[in-house]
Amino acid sequence: MSTMNRQILLASRPTGEPGTDNFKLVSTPVPAVADGQVLVRNHYLSLDPYMRGRMNEGKSYATPQPLNEVMIGGTVGEVVESRNAHFAVGDKVVGMGGWQEYQLVDASQRGVLQKVDTTHVPLSAYLGAVGMPGVTGWYGLAKIIDPKPGETVVVSAASGAVGGAVGQLAKVRGARAVGIAGGADKCRYVVEELGFDACIDYKQHGDVKSLSAALKAECPDGIDGYFENVGGMILDAVMHRANPFSRVAMCGMIAGYNGEPIPMSAPQLILVNRMKIEGFIVSEHMAVWPEALKELGTLVATGKLKYRESVAQGLESAPEAFLGLLKGRNFGKQLVKLI
Amino acid sequence: MSTMNRQILLASRPTGEPGTDNFKLVSTPVPAVADGQVLVRNHYLSLDPYMRGRMNEGKSYATPQPLNEVMIGGTVGEVVESRNAHFAVGDKVVGMGGWQEYQLVDASQRGVLQKVDTTHVPLSAYLGAVGMPGVTGWYGLAKIIDPKPGETVVVSAASGAVGGAVGQLAKVRGARAVGIAGGADKCRYVVEELGFDACIDYKQHGDVKSLSAALKAECPDGIDGYFENVGGMILDAVMHRANPFSRVAMCGMIAGYNGEPIPMSAPQLILVNRMKIEGFIVSEHMAVWPEALKELGTLVATGKLKYRESVAQGLESAPEAFLGLLKGRNFGKQLVKLI
Repeated sequence: MSTMNRQILLASRPTGEPGTDNFKLVSTPVPAVADGQVLVRNHYLSLDPYMRGRMNEGKSYATPQPLNEVMIGGTVGEVVESRNAHFAVGDKVVGMGGWQEYQLVDASQRGVLQKVDTTHVPLSAYLGAVGMPGVTGWYGLAKIIDPKPGETVVVSAASGAVGGAVGQLAKVRGARAVGIAGGADKCRYVVEELGFDACIDYKQHGDVKSLSAALKAECPDGIDGYFENVGGMILDAVMHRANPFSRVAMCGMIAGYNGEPIPMSAPQLILVNRMKIEGFIVSEHMAVWPEALKELGTLVATGKLKYRESVAQGLESAPEAFLGLLKGRNFGKQLVKLI
Repeated sequence: MSTMNRQILLASRPTGEPGTDNFKLVSTPVPAVADGQVLVRNHYLSLDPYMRGRMNEGKSYATPQPLNEVMIGGTVGEVVESRNAHFAVGDKVVGMGGWQEYQLVDASQRGVLQKVDTTHVPLSAYLGAVGMPGVTGWYGLAKIIDPKPGETVVVSAASGAVGGAVGQLAKVRGARAVGIAGGADKCRYVVEELGFDACIDYKQHGDVKSLSAALKAECPDGIDGYFENVGGMILDAVMHRANPFSRVAMCGMIAGYNGEPIPMSAPQLILVNRMKIEGFIVSEHMAVWPEALKELGTLVATGKLKYRESVAQGLESAPEAFLGLLKGRNFGKQLVKLI
């Protein structure tokens, strides 16, 4: 009689590149809702590059995803049963529901579930432009790069959920925004839809020298800020065009996620150019989320912050969609629609 | 009849390692002192690693040292003739006199010449602990690393003028100070005379793994701050032991001064450990010099900031002494005594 909840667990840790066999789909009955608890039916699951890091056992900034447990992940959904005074059936909520169709939440813990308003902002946007990826871009741009009008900001993975926000927020602040993305379609989207000043297709550039020349062409006044999502050759090329007192917000280094060596070839440029390089994880800066979400929400509601979503259908499609994300096959924010 | 001034010029730019043949000793008459000018007899010339960078033509943070001109350098000396109301014969002064015995200064320009008080601080200290090297260490430690009591600060080239100040200032702030230096004598000095908690002889460690293990032993709680004077393997080893939210003040990368590649092997650790790495040049932060010099001067005058000097005798010894400095043959602040 009870509703069944489908879940995806981490079945094994990848050695090198992950595959679908690292995941396992299971089905379990939804438990009864206890006092103080809320049952949420998840509508969308967010897929994000950070999940790749969690699959490893090694030292990282977060505890590894435990084996044989539901994969971690952000979700938006709707309350379907509530025994908590703060939540009513029908409430739209954002939380960390993981790769599963239902989540049972002890909603008396502060912050595990947030009600959201979908009048002007679509529910799925709370996983993207007005959610963790948007705040990630906002933090790196506003708090680390902090561009002045007329400065040049470069962002890698520019068509993604984080990168797209970075460039548009840079434009709002009067800076020049130059994206780096993979392929002509993504670059066209970054310039024509997101409004960046230029976008470089890194697939057209086989080495640092070539990419550095392309950056020189698109950043005639050099680079003052760089938002790093990728690492490797792209970081090297950017550093060769960095201006004195430039700032690098280091958010992700997807190029090294599978254990490939990704050395920085000329760290002496940090000194030569008096650069500041700062790594950050947005979940450690909760104090700025309200300020960030206010700006992001207003920009989305007024149509000034644009984004695109890649939507995979059904929980069972999550592993393939996630592997595609790691290879850059998504276009914009990668979601899984669960309902 | 006029006094002769001996000078050392940069005769040619080095390819790779510099040699004495890159320098040329010349002798010219001291010009007549014009209105507003001051003639200073230099007592000490400061030799510093940054001079190596100036010898190159390539892009660096400073304009290259012009060929066939007097090598740049800090000096302390005594006014021997003055046609400027602000300076009297006998005044002790610090300035950028260069590699020469006399300097003729248009002392109406603000800041080219500073009177110093030698009552409690020896004249030569204004080129070391209470001069540019001291302020360099102070800036990186106080403004970038900013250690909390109980944190661990590591500094490379720890027996040098900059590194020695860094560790002692860290101790003043209640932090644990661990030096890295070359050789048992220097390490003993760093611990026994300068009061560091420990010092690692990098010459005993042939690779990153070995040095990293030594750092683990001496920094059981990890590394919270690192003052970088060297680069290469030492930076890699430190990064493997860096704590979350650690700070790296990048002051010099002497390992790469001759053009050797010195890649940073694992820049992803900047992200994993949410590190902040910042390059700086102390001459670009003149606003903090008074605050820094006040602390440094007080500590030296009260015997709480110790230092050692390597003194070469006579202007003609400067090139050899400078080449020795680049190879770490000096012990403490390298000076040339001119009188």
